[in-house]
Amino acid sequence: MQEEVQKRTEINELGEFALIQLLTSEFVKQQPSTLKGIGDDAAVIDAANACTVVSTDLLIEGIHFDLMYTPLKHLGYKSIVVNLSDIYAMNAIPTQVTVSIAVSNRFSVEAIEELYEGIRRACDFYKVDLVGGDTTSSPKGLVISVTAIGRQVKEKIVYRDGAKPGDQIFVTGEIGGAYLGLQILEREKQIFLEDSKVKIDLENQKYVVERFLKPEASRISVFQFAKSEIIPTSMIDLSDGLSSDLLHICTQSKCGAVIFEENVPINTEAQLLAIKFNLDPITCALNGGEDYELLFTANEADSEKLRFLPGFYHIGEIAEVSQGVKLRSSSGKFHPISAQGWKHF
Amino acid sequence: MQEEVQKRTEINELGEFALIQLLTSEFVKQQPSTLKGIGDDAAVIDAANACTVVSTDLLIEGIHFDLMYTPLKHLGYKSIVVNLSDIYAMNAIPTQVTVSIAVSNRFSVEAIEELYEGIRRACDFYKVDLVGGDTTSSPKGLVISVTAIGRQVKEKIVYRDGAKPGDQIFVTGEIGGAYLGLQILEREKQIFLEDSKVKIDLENQKYVVERFLKPEASRISVFQFAKSEIIPTSMIDLSDGLSSDLLHICTQSKCGAVIFEENVPINTEAQLLAIKFNLDPITCALNGGEDYELLFTANEADSEKLRFLPGFYHIGEIAEVSQGVKLRSSSGKFHPISAQGWKHF
Repeated sequence: MQEEVQKRTEINELGEFALIQLLTSEFVKQQPSTLKGIGDDAAVIDAANACTVVSTDLLIEGIHFDLMYTPLKHLGYKSIVVNLSDIYAMNAIPTQVTVSIAVSNRFSVEAIEELYEGIRRACDFYKVDLVGGDTTSSPKGLVISVTAIGRQVKEKIVYRDGAKPGDQIFVTGEIGGAYLGLQILEREKQIFLEDSKVKIDLENQKYVVERFLKPEASRISVFQFAKSEIIPTSMIDLSDGLSSDLLHICTQSKCGAVIFEENVPINTEAQLLAIKFNLDPITCALNGGEDYELLFTANEADSEKLRFLPGFYHIGEIAEVSQGVKLRSSSGKFHPISAQGWKHF
Repeated sequence: MQEEVQKRTEINELGEFALIQLLTSEFVKQQPSTLKGIGDDAAVIDAANACTVVSTDLLIEGIHFDLMYTPLKHLGYKSIVVNLSDIYAMNAIPTQVTVSIAVSNRFSVEAIEELYEGIRRACDFYKVDLVGGDTTSSPKGLVISVTAIGRQVKEKIVYRDGAKPGDQIFVTGEIGGAYLGLQILEREKQIFLEDSKVKIDLENQKYVVERFLKPEASRISVFQFAKSEIIPTSMIDLSDGLSSDLLHICTQSKCGAVIFEENVPINTEAQLLAIKFNLDPITCALNGGEDYELLFTANEADSEKLRFLPGFYHIGEIAEVSQGVKLRSSSGKFHPISAQGWKHF
C-alpha cells in the first residue's frame, strides 16, 4: 500500500544479467567448500570425503503463498528455510543453495530485491552460500524454486526408514502454531476483502503469525546431536503435519507408533487461539503443517541422553507394525492416526 | 487432437504421493554414487574425492516452451538435456538430476506421464539418476524446474574465465539450426491459428525442427577430452547463441576474440532455410540460441590434438582484450560482435 511512494524500476530496464548482478552482489561466501558460485554454467562444490545431500522445492504463488499477507522479505527467508529444514532432517549440515525465480512484470526490481533480501538473511543466518539459479519471466505470478545442498559422512546420515519398535519418538519444538497463524491470516484477509477500512491488529497473535510467516529450521538440534553423539534412528521435518509425517516414518520403517496426547508440545497462545476457532488443539498439532520442527526416533541409549537435553520433547514410542499408528488420548483411549495433512491437488 | 480417444485421469484422483510413485517407478538407478534417491527429505550422493557440480534451470510455459508445437515427451527430454549440457560445459560428468513440476488441472495424469517418459529417456540415455523433486499444482500452466548434479576432479573442471590470447576457439557441432527450427514452428503455428484445416508438413525441415525440439548435449566431446587428455582453457554451452556465449567467455577471461565466418559450421538444410526466410545464415548462427553445442578454447598443444579429432570445428582465436570481439567475414572484413542472443525480459 506504500507502493506509490517507493521507487519502481521495471525489470526490462535492467535485463537479466544486470538483475542477477544486482540481486546477488550482497551475498558473502560462507563455506570453504564453495569453489565456484554464481557466474558459470554450474556451481562447484568440494565434497571432500562427505556425502552430498540434495533437496529441492517449488513454490508457486496462489498455491504455496499468498502475497496479500506474505511480505516478500519473509517469503524469501521462508523459501530458503523450508529447504534447509529438509537437509537438517537428514542429520546433515546445509552448505549451499540455488534459487531460481520466475516473475511477471507485475513485480518491480525493488520487489524482487525485497525477496532477495530475505534470501540473503537466511543464507547469512544459516551460513549457506547461494551458488546459482536462474532468473526468468513468467506470464503470471511468482515462482520460486530452491535446491539446497548439504553434507554429512555416510554413517551419520539419518533416513526415514530406520525406526525400530521400542525407539522413542521426539519433536524439537512446539507444533500446531503455523497452522493457526495461517488461519488468522486467512480470516483477516477475508475481513479486509469485505471492508478495506477495517484496521487489522495481529499484535495478540504474534507468535502464531510468525511461526507461519517466518519459520526457522531446527539447526540447533542437529548441532546438539553432533555434540552429544546422538544419531537418530529415523528423522523427517514437520512440513505436512505430525500425522502425515509420522506416517511417512512408519510406512518406510515398516512399524507402528503410539503418540501420547499429553506430551505433544503446543504453545499456550496457539491453544487459546485453537479454542477460539472452535478447533481441538491436538487436531491442529496433528494435522497442521509447516512447523518445520524435526520429528525423529532414538534408540534406548540416545533416548536416555535426550531426557537431559533442553529443546527435545518426548511424544511417543515406536511399536510393531501390527499395532498401527495411534494417538493415546489424555483419558487413555486410543485413536488411529491418518494422514490429513496438507494436500496439493 | 487425439485427446478424445485417450484415457484421462484427473490428477486429484491420484493425489501427490501416488502421482510421484506412478511417475518415477520406471526409473532405474544408473549411478553407484546415488546412495538415496527419491523418498526421503533429500537425496544422498557419495561424492568420493571429486567435486560436486550443480546447475539448475526453470522452464515456464508460455516463456520457454509452447505446448502448441512441443510434444510433452520432447519437452521432458529437452528439460533434462539443457541442464546436463551445463554440467558438460564444466567438463564434468552428470550423475543425478532432481525434477520439480507444477501443473494446472488442464493436464491429465497421462499428459504428465508423457512428460516423465521423456525425462526417463533422457536419464537413461545420459546415465543419470532422478533423485528427487517436488510435484505440486499450479493455478495456470506448466512449470518445470530441473537441477543437475555432476562430478569431476578439481583439476579438470573448466570455467569460463581461463581463455588466453593465442588459444584457439572450437565448437562441437553445427549451429543455428535450432533457431531456424523455432522460426518454422512459430510460422506453422500462425498458419494453423489462421486456418486449422491447413495440413502442416514439416518433413523437409526435419533437421532444424529436431534441433529445436529434441536437442542433445555434447557428452561425446567431454568423453573425447578425457580420452585424448585435453583440458579446454574455457568452456560454455551454446544456449543463448554464439555471440552472447562467446562474450561471456571473453568478459570473464578478460580477452578479445576473432571468429572466422567461413569456419562456422552451419548445416546445409539450415542454410537453405535461412535464405528462404530472408535471413543471413551467419546471423542465425551468431544470434540463434539453443543449439546446446559446446563452445571452448584450447591452448596450442591441445589445439594440435583437436585438429585430428572428428566432431570439433575450429572457428576462431582468442585475442588481446584491446582487440575486442569480432567476426572476420569471408571477404576479410571485421565486424564487432555484440550480444543479440535470447533475452527474457
